[in-house]
Amino acid sequence: MQRLYENLFYKKDVNELFTAESFIQYMLQFEAALANAQAKHNLIPVAAAKIIEQNCTASFINIESLTEEAAQGGNAAIPLIKQLTQLVKTKDTEAAKYVHFGATSQDTIDTAIMLQLRDALKIIYNDLQQLINQLAALTEAHRNTVMIGRSFMQHARPITFGFKVACWLDGLWRSKERAEKLLSESFVLQLGGAVGTLSGMQEKGLQVAETIRLLLQLNMPAIPWHTQRDRFAETATTLGILSGNIGKIAKDISLLMQTEIGEVFEPAAPGKGGSSTMPHKRNPVGCIAILANTNRVPNLVATMLSCMVQDNERATGTWHAEWETLADIVQLTAGAVQQACIITNGLEVDKERMCSNIELTNGLIYAENISLALAGYIGKAEAHALMETLCKEAVQKKIHLKNLVQKNDTIIRYLSAEQTVYLFKPENSAGMNNDFIDRVLSEVK
Amino acid sequence: MQRLYENLFYKKDVNELFTAESFIQYMLQFEAALANAQAKHNLIPVAAAKIIEQNCTASFINIESLTEEAAQGGNAAIPLIKQLTQLVKTKDTEAAKYVHFGATSQDTIDTAIMLQLRDALKIIYNDLQQLINQLAALTEAHRNTVMIGRSFMQHARPITFGFKVACWLDGLWRSKERAEKLLSESFVLQLGGAVGTLSGMQEKGLQVAETIRLLLQLNMPAIPWHTQRDRFAETATTLGILSGNIGKIAKDISLLMQTEIGEVFEPAAPGKGGSSTMPHKRNPVGCIAILANTNRVPNLVATMLSCMVQDNERATGTWHAEWETLADIVQLTAGAVQQACIITNGLEVDKERMCSNIELTNGLIYAENISLALAGYIGKAEAHALMETLCKEAVQKKIHLKNLVQKNDTIIRYLSAEQTVYLFKPENSAGMNNDFIDRVLSEVK
Amino acid sequence: MQRLYENLFYKKDVNELFTAESFIQYMLQFEAALANAQAKHNLIPVAAAKIIEQNCTASFINIESLTEEAAQGGNAAIPLIKQLTQLVKTKDTEAAKYVHFGATSQDTIDTAIMLQLRDALKIIYNDLQQLINQLAALTEAHRNTVMIGRSFMQHARPITFGFKVACWLDGLWRSKERAEKLLSESFVLQLGGAVGTLSGMQEKGLQVAETIRLLLQLNMPAIPWHTQRDRFAETATTLGILSGNIGKIAKDISLLMQTEIGEVFEPAAPGKGGSSTMPHKRNPVGCIAILANTNRVPNLVATMLSCMVQDNERATGTWHAEWETLADIVQLTAGAVQQACIITNGLEVDKERMCSNIELTNGLIYAENISLALAGYIGKAEAHALMETLCKEAVQKKIHLKNLVQKNDTIIRYLSAEQTVYLFKPENSAGMNNDFIDRVLSEVK
Amino acid sequence: MQRLYENLFYKKDVNELFTAESFIQYMLQFEAALANAQAKHNLIPVAAAKIIEQNCTASFINIESLTEEAAQGGNAAIPLIKQLTQLVKTKDTEAAKYVHFGATSQDTIDTAIMLQLRDALKIIYNDLQQLINQLAALTEAHRNTVMIGRSFMQHARPITFGFKVACWLDGLWRSKERAEKLLSESFVLQLGGAVGTLSGMQEKGLQVAETIRLLLQLNMPAIPWHTQRDRFAETATTLGILSGNIGKIAKDISLLMQTEIGEVFEPAAPGKGGSSTMPHKRNPVGCIAILANTNRVPNLVATMLSCMVQDNERATGTWHAEWETLADIVQLTAGAVQQACIITNGLEVDKERMCSNIELTNGLIYAENISLALAGYIGKAEAHALMETLCKEAVQKKIHLKNLVQKNDTIIRYLSAEQTVYLFKPENSAGMNNDFIDRVLSEVK
Repeated sequence: MQRLYENLFYKKDVNELFTAESFIQYMLQFEAALANAQAKHNLIPVAAAKIIEQNCTASFINIESLTEEAAQGGNAAIPLIKQLTQLVKTKDTEAAKYVHFGATSQDTIDTAIMLQLRDALKIIYNDLQQLINQLAALTEAHRNTVMIGRSFMQHARPITFGFKVACWLDGLWRSKERAEKLLSESFVLQLGGAVGTLSGMQEKGLQVAETIRLLLQLNMPAIPWHTQRDRFAETATTLGILSGNIGKIAKDISLLMQTEIGEVFEPAAPGKGGSSTMPHKRNPVGCIAILANTNRVPNLVATMLSCMVQDNERATGTWHAEWETLADIVQLTAGAVQQACIITNGLEVDKERMCSNIELTNGLIYAENISLALAGYIGKAEAHALMETLCKEAVQKKIHLKNLVQKNDTIIRYLSAEQTVYLFKPENSAGMNNDFIDRVLSEVK
Repeated sequence: MQRLYENLFYKKDVNELFTAESFIQYMLQFEAALANAQAKHNLIPVAAAKIIEQNCTASFINIESLTEEAAQGGNAAIPLIKQLTQLVKTKDTEAAKYVHFGATSQDTIDTAIMLQLRDALKIIYNDLQQLINQLAALTEAHRNTVMIGRSFMQHARPITFGFKVACWLDGLWRSKERAEKLLSESFVLQLGGAVGTLSGMQEKGLQVAETIRLLLQLNMPAIPWHTQRDRFAETATTLGILSGNIGKIAKDISLLMQTEIGEVFEPAAPGKGGSSTMPHKRNPVGCIAILANTNRVPNLVATMLSCMVQDNERATGTWHAEWETLADIVQLTAGAVQQACIITNGLEVDKERMCSNIELTNGLIYAENISLALAGYIGKAEAHALMETLCKEAVQKKIHLKNLVQKNDTIIRYLSAEQTVYLFKPENSAGMNNDFIDRVLSEVK
Repeated sequence: MQRLYENLFYKKDVNELFTAESFIQYMLQFEAALANAQAKHNLIPVAAAKIIEQNCTASFINIESLTEEAAQGGNAAIPLIKQLTQLVKTKDTEAAKYVHFGATSQDTIDTAIMLQLRDALKIIYNDLQQLINQLAALTEAHRNTVMIGRSFMQHARPITFGFKVACWLDGLWRSKERAEKLLSESFVLQLGGAVGTLSGMQEKGLQVAETIRLLLQLNMPAIPWHTQRDRFAETATTLGILSGNIGKIAKDISLLMQTEIGEVFEPAAPGKGGSSTMPHKRNPVGCIAILANTNRVPNLVATMLSCMVQDNERATGTWHAEWETLADIVQLTAGAVQQACIITNGLEVDKERMCSNIELTNGLIYAENISLALAGYIGKAEAHALMETLCKEAVQKKIHLKNLVQKNDTIIRYLSAEQTVYLFKPENSAGMNNDFIDRVLSEVK
Repeated sequence: MQRLYENLFYKKDVNELFTAESFIQYMLQFEAALANAQAKHNLIPVAAAKIIEQNCTASFINIESLTEEAAQGGNAAIPLIKQLTQLVKTKDTEAAKYVHFGATSQDTIDTAIMLQLRDALKIIYNDLQQLINQLAALTEAHRNTVMIGRSFMQHARPITFGFKVACWLDGLWRSKERAEKLLSESFVLQLGGAVGTLSGMQEKGLQVAETIRLLLQLNMPAIPWHTQRDRFAETATTLGILSGNIGKIAKDISLLMQTEIGEVFEPAAPGKGGSSTMPHKRNPVGCIAILANTNRVPNLVATMLSCMVQDNERATGTWHAEWETLADIVQLTAGAVQQACIITNGLEVDKERMCSNIELTNGLIYAENISLALAGYIGKAEAHALMETLCKEAVQKKIHLKNLVQKNDTIIRYLSAEQTVYLFKPENSAGMNNDFIDRVLSEVK
């Protein structure tokens, strides 16, 4: 079964971690580690562990019957363990007794999800690192590329494109740090048996757990967490925030690609962004895919948060709701990050258009420059009021504000002609642009 | 690619409507109808339409390359039309000119989704009808099966199990009516061309549209709805409400299956509800699957609602976010309804346990009976206060409330011994139980 | 306590329905109707009912102590009934016995919410009607006001502004019909007593209920609905869809108000949309308020849907979560609709700017006209490919597409010079614009 | 305007931080610090700063007219600054020129929110610390209080109540660490002027910023974050996760308070948990309030995440949607944590009921003990199958499993009578209960 939008919304190698077969392999990885650890601590025979491990291969499993039986038992681990036991039994009846010894299905599933998440996070993290590198380069390259800053989608004051990208970068940087925290802290073993007390392994439980978590390179939790789901929730929220960061970038680029603005463009590719009916269009396809995903992720995160309210020692439905939801969050975020890498690598920046757009308001955007310069003489409020009047006049008469400013008696009294000319240049209007850029770049390097 | 929980959370024949191949077929169904309608109205040659229709078969399409190209164009219709045009071209170069004539990808996709939704809704509707029939029978059968009603999960006052089921039924009934409204009104054709004006079909546009919608048995919208998405939103909310109805049933059954309560049970099936570690358990697997789904649907509905805020004549990401989200809503709801059919067909009801549970509070639940009977004599507040005192005494001394009531001077003054005995029977405490049941049953029949 | 954004996000007269005092009055309205109905059916003395009714006035209630006690009992009805009983008692000890006779707090609260919702819905409905009228007038006025249609925020093909407004109108129309359905069907009485069986009113329960619902002009439910919350959920989803309709309008207007586009503007008002730092700006303040609200409503709707999964005969938390959530949905939607009325009443439309914007792409948007005209001769694919080439050339050389078209041998072979000129005019490119507008206008009139 | 559920869902001293007046004071705190910092760096006269500071008092502000004007400007800072300027002007026309010098409304609002959030977080943090202390004491006290563990709301295997509380504690501990991270890192100054470049303060911008953030004891961001909202999103998600932790506790307690279970109870208080119609009830009012809140928070978090997708340098609606949403998240979470403190302080634990409930399944819950003990001899699957048979027999015949076990030939072959007796005791069934408890307690101390 091919997913229709496998390539539009998703990243292939992340999706592959989430196939039925792949998840089965993660569960089997747990079962093998469990057997080996129990053998090490003399809970089961070493020979049994060996045979169990040899059978822990997803391709030995009949997935179709597994999914059918999953509907009876309520999860995928029960039929998997049944099949695994059967497989082992054909080799060694004795060994079959020790499959999944003292553990519970949730141990298998939760640990498998942890392994799966970690592998997925690593890929996302690498893409995020690449994205950060690309954006750092873009920031540096466009440190002095003057463009208009927009508030409420209206021309406000000049910034540089480097400044805009540095803002994106700053947010991504914190998401990277959050991802690092996840990678170093949040991926832990689940091993508790039926109700979390590890009652099936007598006094060896903690030792077995310690060995398994070393084998799987997971962290050790203080206590089993069958119904304490904050780590999964935090994975979800961390990706939710990252997804928000990425969505913001796509929002900006898609707005800047508007026909009337045309300041940046997703890199062209054969067949990309074409329309079936309008031969001339260049659609922001990458941004669209990102925005589609980032529209979806927040509500999936809400499901993960609401599913934290779990009953007793194993939850009735709220556990089960996590499975596909968390998988969707990871895959959609991975797809968004990948698309962001693609569209910012080779992003086309039209500096000339940026320059000419600045002038669209006939100098109105420099009104604040004058206003602030005047404020020291006539007060902020009066200066603001004066400029408001001149701006209205400029709009009505459709003439450049500079013309009115240079003829206004009040202004002439305080500002020289040179000052006025200076104040009407975008490069003199971007404030501490370079300081801020430096601060961000030093952060990410 | 097999989905791991295909059989647990989903209904197979609904899921099959949502495969890549199935959706491609729906799109091709639109393309064939478009060609035929245009031929009828002399926009394209009849021969061309015939050849186009002959090629509108999903199995002719290379899905793998389609999904790859979908990432370039941003949707599945663009590469599909390309492949279809190619297919037609190998038969007739002339005919190839008329594939997808004057239409836009969104026409294809939106109409295909409408066809797909309608087919899915019909299946869900049938299951819902079956569920309603089953619940009506349960209501009738347990009209006099006395059990305790619970508020805030505490014993409150007696009801009958039939009354409880009638309440479920009443909600489902309205969901059925909402589904009927959807089926009769909401499934409409999308045909507007690039920006909704049908500019590519000259003055024939409306006639073509009328013919297509007849061919596809869809309704005719007043105007194309490329960025007016309320119909999809209403499909989502209607299913969201239905999903809530179903979740409520599962919540109740799972609570009643608790070991300490044990009043009803999902029907037993071989291997169903077993635990890998606890041989004695009988887990509410059907309820779990339902609750998992109904935990997820509301937030997916939120995505559909938030995606209604679409820009201009075709939306940048909010359109695209609908696709998989709406499909998930439909499939999860279908799965929930199917599970509800399964668990209420052959639901085990333990009448004895219901009776014995009523007595668990040593008659406290009859306190209101006495309280109301006394209210006429000594006032509601005083009666309430008196019974509060007696209840506390009954709890402290762990004796039956009836004993205290029968010895209380104030009560004896107003109520005879026979009255007291009568007031302590559950069958005299269920109020207008049968009237309400009749009202609901007459509604659904 | 003044709400900071009372006037920005909300509609004052709707908010007033949701104050503590107002809700108390709605609850008292239920208590009075209950007493009167019970008196009519001889359950309580007529004199008692009279006194109870006389005390059912919110200003008699100590709200501060009520809110404090609400934290003990878990809802506002319990302390209200206590205070009411006390008030009645000071007049007539006997009458005090009959306050809230045989009812439960949820009856009071749910019915009060129904009354409150209905009043709010009526206001929203009137605003919606006004909005529809305004948009119908706008549609008619701008039926031939040509502008560019945009897909993915890129120039696509011409439409008229009237067409755009007609699309908004079409969606609103359906929301109006949904609101009418709510108003005529969904507002029902809640009266069930402790567990819904009306056990406290003996055989008179249904008659009392019928009388109350007539007094309050509510519909009669088939059965009490203490944990069947679909009507509240449907109120939420109906408003959620309406909110989406309104958000779409605000999204479009805010995009069209962009400095670079400048095609429509919210009506000017003194001090409106000014910026504290930029004297020249004219911010889309109304759109902003709408978009703020419509960003919030969908997730509140999700809460309402997820709260449908209620336990047994009275829910533990999911009932309580509805109260403020539903109130927020209503108030935010009312605010959004009101703002939409304000901004579309006196909306400034810059027809000249619309005309000049169409020409920004040097005729590229007419490419489809040529493409379609050619398709009949050389096939759709070839025509598309040819125009793609010419468009690229036009972009690279920065010349008008018409110039290239008029010189292209293939095109000249099939299209006359007059045809070409005709095809490059926007008024000849809006397809069935007027038919669609007529269809929508006939719908709403 | 009193909020009806001020005391049920909320914590009073947190709510007080979120009144209109309180927020105005936070904004004025920013304005005062801005003026003082600018005076220090010679951007404005020291005397002006002094006068400005003297007027930065919320009680001087006309809130009613402020809220009215907020609807014109689109936020509360614009009219506030206007009023402040007017106030200063009445004292010193010169000083009035320097109010809000070079800053933008978003600087004022975002910084004020940061100050407000920090104050609220500190209160929540203290309550959380108290809750952790209480739960640590409960854990220690009930380390050996045996009770049944439940999975899917069915009896599974014994745990201790201390173990259950330790699980809650472990999750809360991580939430506490997340809150500490917020408190130390996330609360930063916003100062960027119109588009984030601080263009209104020439080369002094960064120095001014550094001084303000010291005055307000906030952290310094690398770059203004007008449309990089991850810090607010992280505040939301951190509280969302905490809210989930608290909801889990309330879910468990409310389930354990069920009439049929009766193992723990919220502490009694006069009038608390009473019912208006059922004098005997003891409702889980605290849990209800918590569950109401924790049902709402996740979807509010989703709004915060989706609002991260902001346009350009100041967002059109997504900024504005944050304000009340974030305030709601904070207040609802504060209310939930407070309620958790109340209900776990003096929580009643019925050890006897816990013991007797364990026995409800006639020994079935010990089946795993036997099963595991047998597994070593006859294999896990066989042992499981044998116990499944015996369990069914025990259920059908309604006899204690021990009786059947002690008579079963296969079992007798491998297990001595003493072993069997041992295996049927709950205190021998809680596995590594004490080790896990120690691990958690050492974590939180």
